[in-house]
Amino acid sequence: MANWENNIRKVVPYTPGEQPNQPDMIKLNTNENPYPPAPGVREVLRNMDTDTLRLYPDPAALDLVRAIADTYGLSDNQVFVGVGSDDVLAMSFLTFFNSEKPILFPDITYSFYDVWADLFRIPYERPVLDEHFHIRKEDYFGENGGIVFPNPNAPTGVVMPLSEVEDIVAHNQDVIVIVDEAYVDFGSQSALPLIEKYENLLIVQTFSKSRSMAGMRIGFAMGSPKLIKYLNDAKYSFNSYTMDRTALAAGVAAVKDQEYFCETCHKIIETREWTKKELSKLGFSFEDSKANFIFATHETCPAEDLFKALRERHIYVRYFPGGRTGNHLRITVGTREEMETFIGFLRDYLSE
Amino acid sequence: MANWENNIRKVVPYTPGEQPNQPDMIKLNTNENPYPPAPGVREVLRNMDTDTLRLYPDPAALDLVRAIADTYGLSDNQVFVGVGSDDVLAMSFLTFFNSEKPILFPDITYSFYDVWADLFRIPYERPVLDEHFHIRKEDYFGENGGIVFPNPNAPTGVVMPLSEVEDIVAHNQDVIVIVDEAYVDFGSQSALPLIEKYENLLIVQTFSKSRSMAGMRIGFAMGSPKLIKYLNDAKYSFNSYTMDRTALAAGVAAVKDQEYFCETCHKIIETREWTKKELSKLGFSFEDSKANFIFATHETCPAEDLFKALRERHIYVRYFPGGRTGNHLRITVGTREEMETFIGFLRDYLSE
Repeated sequence: MANWENNIRKVVPYTPGEQPNQPDMIKLNTNENPYPPAPGVREVLRNMDTDTLRLYPDPAALDLVRAIADTYGLSDNQVFVGVGSDDVLAMSFLTFFNSEKPILFPDITYSFYDVWADLFRIPYERPVLDEHFHIRKEDYFGENGGIVFPNPNAPTGVVMPLSEVEDIVAHNQDVIVIVDEAYVDFGSQSALPLIEKYENLLIVQTFSKSRSMAGMRIGFAMGSPKLIKYLNDAKYSFNSYTMDRTALAAGVAAVKDQEYFCETCHKIIETREWTKKELSKLGFSFEDSKANFIFATHETCPAEDLFKALRERHIYVRYFPGGRTGNHLRITVGTREEMETFIGFLRDYLSE
Repeated sequence: MANWENNIRKVVPYTPGEQPNQPDMIKLNTNENPYPPAPGVREVLRNMDTDTLRLYPDPAALDLVRAIADTYGLSDNQVFVGVGSDDVLAMSFLTFFNSEKPILFPDITYSFYDVWADLFRIPYERPVLDEHFHIRKEDYFGENGGIVFPNPNAPTGVVMPLSEVEDIVAHNQDVIVIVDEAYVDFGSQSALPLIEKYENLLIVQTFSKSRSMAGMRIGFAMGSPKLIKYLNDAKYSFNSYTMDRTALAAGVAAVKDQEYFCETCHKIIETREWTKKELSKLGFSFEDSKANFIFATHETCPAEDLFKALRERHIYVRYFPGGRTGNHLRITVGTREEMETFIGFLRDYLSE
């Protein structure tokens, strides 16, 4: 190792899901939305005055902040936007988790949390989910340096009732509590109403799932004006202009079309419920997911075998080998047609 | 202050230049390019299949990385891309500057360097520019935790000859040296050839200035495969998907049009040289800028008065009050027509 390598921050990076690109593939591996973005997004990009791209975007991203604030009944100063919810969460870890006490998040959860903690040298502890993959709220009542968990949790899809979320926040008013609601729009209740009551609660959401915009990189946080101010200070100390002009314009168009949003979320929920029934019939078991994926294990067939067989057929799901969840597959909910093909394949494969 | 505020990272953020938006304005305050992006950028956005926005972009941004690598005669593993060069630099500070010894950068330079150092708790020292605003290379020969400087420097526009850049790198082979070449395409020599010789040298450039894409947020770094790998590891530990699908497509289109790039850079250089002559005639003095801006002071009229008078006429330039440069204006080079209006206004104003 050269001397210049001594002062490099060495990390074990997060491994994003594979992004295969085959014409006949059924891509159920990274929780994308099977439906295209709202029609207005297309119009906005088609009609964009590309000459303006020579100019910096609005560093405050005010058009987008305001469109989100309007949608959720908030003021502009309660909303922060970033380059996907990963950017928002990374910035939140950097801004809010500077205690010497460990932050807390579940042992089975979004696998980026420990990566951010390691990157920023934040100590952490990981309370163990119960045998049904549920978060035990009492595990979060002790002293800590901050809390973060997804609701619904990933990759389990399990929802914590709002009353329990509030219990956790109420027990932790001296630290920042982040609820990562990447999947909340697929049928569970947001903790958003609690931000008026708890100044230390941050809700993070994304356009990548329910708004069909993973490719545009838009995430946002909602919280008290004080929290949002701290977050913006850190953002302006990292990169003043995070959101490009196309993302700002497309984001506004997407968030304004509530009808399309509700319609596509509804279709995904219907397809998810249908898929659950079919998976049960085939001998799969899973906790009741309220996300746009199902985290399932089969009574006899190993997850790894299923993963490989599906992959050969160009059906991509996510498989996390090892540990308590090593025999599970995380299956994104696609269109009804895609899920029929998927179920059909499993039916044939399992009856061979 | 509430208890939860105790562990927040408190920072004094960077203040970006104002982004006014008036129909008749002449915007010479944030070093944007007065010409639109290459024609291919427009086509790419017009013809974009917006349905694909539902899918994550390529986390490795390979199309863009390859287009840049091809342009500069490099391999893919020598190029890193980010959300503007600010993102690339922020990530570089986080990755490379983890020594307990101070990093070094000039006292008068891009005002984001000390902000990043403060954000990441990196100690720093700021060697003083000489009386002509030139970097004294010997100031960078002592022990340090890393080095960063722009070449040409901002806001002065002063260029350090390549031999001196190499002298600095040669004296600092145990730390990372970053040369921030945001303005290099306007007539100075890049240190790029040195990356084959010095594994610890990182060159950072941007699409925001010479490629007319400030609004798309694209920056890049070039260096040894080892450096780029460390940078990517940190990036994958922060946000896997930084570049959205429109930025990737538009970036490729921009970098492939070398003819348009050369033509617009050439026009800006010509206009800069014309503006220098006119400013001299009006009693301004300045070091010889090789950037797309001129950092000038007037023999009798205070910079603040000029700044305000110009502003009333909706001509925006940048003014940094205080210190050794407090009587200077940083004037971005616009189109020839814009600069004629600007010079005409100054002529009238100064003869009043």
